Amino acid sequence: MKTKPDYRRYLEMVAKRMILVHKLDTLIKLILRAIVRNVHTKHAVLFLHDQGKDEYVAHVSRGKEGLKIPSGFAKIRKDNPLIRYFTEKELNIFGRDFLISDRLNYFISSKKAKKDKKLKSFLENVRFQFSLYNAKACLPGFFEDKLICLFLLGQKHDRKVFTQDELGYLSVLSSDAVMAIQNARLFEDLKTQLEHNRTLFLQTVKALATAIEAKDKYTSGHTERVSIYSMILAQELKSMGKISRKDWDKFVDDLKIASLLHDIGKIGVKETVLNKNGFLNDEERLEMQKHPLVGFSILNQVDEFQEPILGVKYHHERYDGGGYPEGLKGKNIPLIAQVISIVDTFDALTTDRPYRKGLLKEEAIKIIEENKGKQFSPLIVEAFLKIYNSGKI
Amino acid sequence: MKTKPDYRRYLEMVAKRMILVHKLDTLIKLILRAIVRNVHTKHAVLFLHDQGKDEYVAHVSRGKEGLKIPSGFAKIRKDNPLIRYFTEKELNIFGRDFLISDRLNYFISSKKAKKDKKLKSFLENVRFQFSLYNAKACLPGFFEDKLICLFLLGQKHDRKVFTQDELGYLSVLSSDAVMAIQNARLFEDLKTQLEHNRTLFLQTVKALATAIEAKDKYTSGHTERVSIYSMILAQELKSMGKISRKDWDKFVDDLKIASLLHDIGKIGVKETVLNKNGFLNDEERLEMQKHPLVGFSILNQVDEFQEPILGVKYHHERYDGGGYPEGLKGKNIPLIAQVISIVDTFDALTTDRPYRKGLLKEEAIKIIEENKGKQFSPLIVEAFLKIYNSGKI
Repeated sequence: MKTKPDYRRYLEMVAKRMILVHKLDTLIKLILRAIVRNVHTKHAVLFLHDQGKDEYVAHVSRGKEGLKIPSGFAKIRKDNPLIRYFTEKELNIFGRDFLISDRLNYFISSKKAKKDKKLKSFLENVRFQFSLYNAKACLPGFFEDKLICLFLLGQKHDRKVFTQDELGYLSVLSSDAVMAIQNARLFEDLKTQLEHNRTLFLQTVKALATAIEAKDKYTSGHTERVSIYSMILAQELKSMGKISRKDWDKFVDDLKIASLLHDIGKIGVKETVLNKNGFLNDEERLEMQKHPLVGFSILNQVDEFQEPILGVKYHHERYDGGGYPEGLKGKNIPLIAQVISIVDTFDALTTDRPYRKGLLKEEAIKIIEENKGKQFSPLIVEAFLKIYNSGKI
Repeated sequence: MKTKPDYRRYLEMVAKRMILVHKLDTLIKLILRAIVRNVHTKHAVLFLHDQGKDEYVAHVSRGKEGLKIPSGFAKIRKDNPLIRYFTEKELNIFGRDFLISDRLNYFISSKKAKKDKKLKSFLENVRFQFSLYNAKACLPGFFEDKLICLFLLGQKHDRKVFTQDELGYLSVLSSDAVMAIQNARLFEDLKTQLEHNRTLFLQTVKALATAIEAKDKYTSGHTERVSIYSMILAQELKSMGKISRKDWDKFVDDLKIASLLHDIGKIGVKETVLNKNGFLNDEERLEMQKHPLVGFSILNQVDEFQEPILGVKYHHERYDGGGYPEGLKGKNIPLIAQVISIVDTFDALTTDRPYRKGLLKEEAIKIIEENKGKQFSPLIVEAFLKIYNSGKI
């Protein structure tokens, strides 16, 4: 003798798992599995309302025998008879909790149906929808009187009709599922908004950085290239595994910002110096060398830029201590600045300047190698050579 | 005869409401109410784990008789006997599901307790904690083996002991509550992150805008004042109700950005023109008048700036069509640009310039009034006068 399934326990378990699943796709799979496994149907379809398009999109369980929905039936519109049955009061003559195909068939061939041709024709259309999806039962999921989803259930493996216990389980499950779906949607909306804001932020920083770069007419595209090179170099440093950092992701985010803004301080350098066609004299060089500190003081107003400003402030320091503004040495130079320093130099060497043509990449690499332990940290040079040799830059 | 309470139904109802409450405070009230009302206790206390401080913070129901927690007992540390009872396996001798004061008392005065003085002393400390909160029962809330919360229940109104049904209800409620709390916390974290990112974004835009403003040495603080005035004026326009917009909040956000960036295009204007100490000649004026279009082309790279760029591009248009860059007229000038135009002019008039001292506010207002229907839209002038007359600017 089989023991009676404990639907209450099933529901509690499913509900508990559902509330913490915030990926809609995963959630839908979880719900469909909870139906197919516990009620033992051959398959189950969940039609989920798409708010944007105001239509219902099908998700199908991978039950034992599955169900291949013909393309074109993967979505149903809100004027589909199945939807109308639950959303139009005068149409749900068997109640709004569920709709069973047997009952539908019985009614259609009854005397009562003959009298109401319009209703009969409507229910025949509903039956046709049932047949399309091999469905034996249909349950709605409402949220505040809005039809959020619709479950279509295939035949049970034992070919028997659905019991009251099963239908009760399904009803509660459907209403729990609606809550979980709404919850997951809210989460996805928030996450989308977060990603969206991140993009907006980076686009804005990039637009402003590029605008400022435009003042320096010899360095077109420099900012963008430096930020691309930095990302590649950071990736290499991470995979080399010689630097132990827990927060690589945060570091990469900060590096991106620092790379975009590393020359922001040039806004404070005189145009005549910035655009001088030739070598700078001492006074002009000092004017130019203000830019890391100007950049620092601009970005220092932004609470969250503690790490990026280090990149901006120290990207002209040298490993041997001969750089500016502070003459920091070796490991005292923040990693973020070391990364920018090398890619900044590489890009400067390989692009044309008013007073010289850009070097070939291999020539620039030679200079960088020669400066290992002098201008640049040996480890960073090692990583840089790796990305050069593998053709990544 | 009283009907037996249907705890199953209570649970389903509470669980359903809980999942959609994402404000932790509201959720906690809901949970405590579900205890006090359905189990009829005089009060209930929820100790909720604070991840940051690794302590448990008390939230008290406003049951009929309430409970005033002496200050100092509103938080308990993780070494509190109540917490230790549930987190240390060897201590929870009555099981980990709940702890009842009667059972505790019984054990403490038993022979068994006499033999294990250490345990007895520990349980006496637990009992002391019970007495502090007038508690008769205590239930834990675990999430993945972590103690997230602890419920302390006061006496029932009927002074009887807790029934198995009640304890069963409370156990499931506690575990549902933990899920809902974790869910709400995730929501709050995401929302905090969103707000945080918004702040970061505005701070960054402001820092960069200010940096660019610094090029124009006569306009210190202009950007900030324009953005403050815009916000006040937008508020006034909204409350006047003469402009019908569904999206005022979005408009205000966009206006904030546009105000901060309205002069961003000055980055493309020659320093000599920007900083000229005197009136500009025709050629210089044309150079200066490039700035709205330069600003437009900088910000045009940012997808989401459709509305802000209109403010930047058109803030030098005039209501009578005599402005630049396009000579737009009347209602063809986007509202966002009309707002910036008037506050920009007001600030320019009231601050010192190299070739003249700033006007008094009342003098500037007079000029603005004279320009009603000429430089400025009559409606905007009307709103501007209101904020001036009420002392808001």
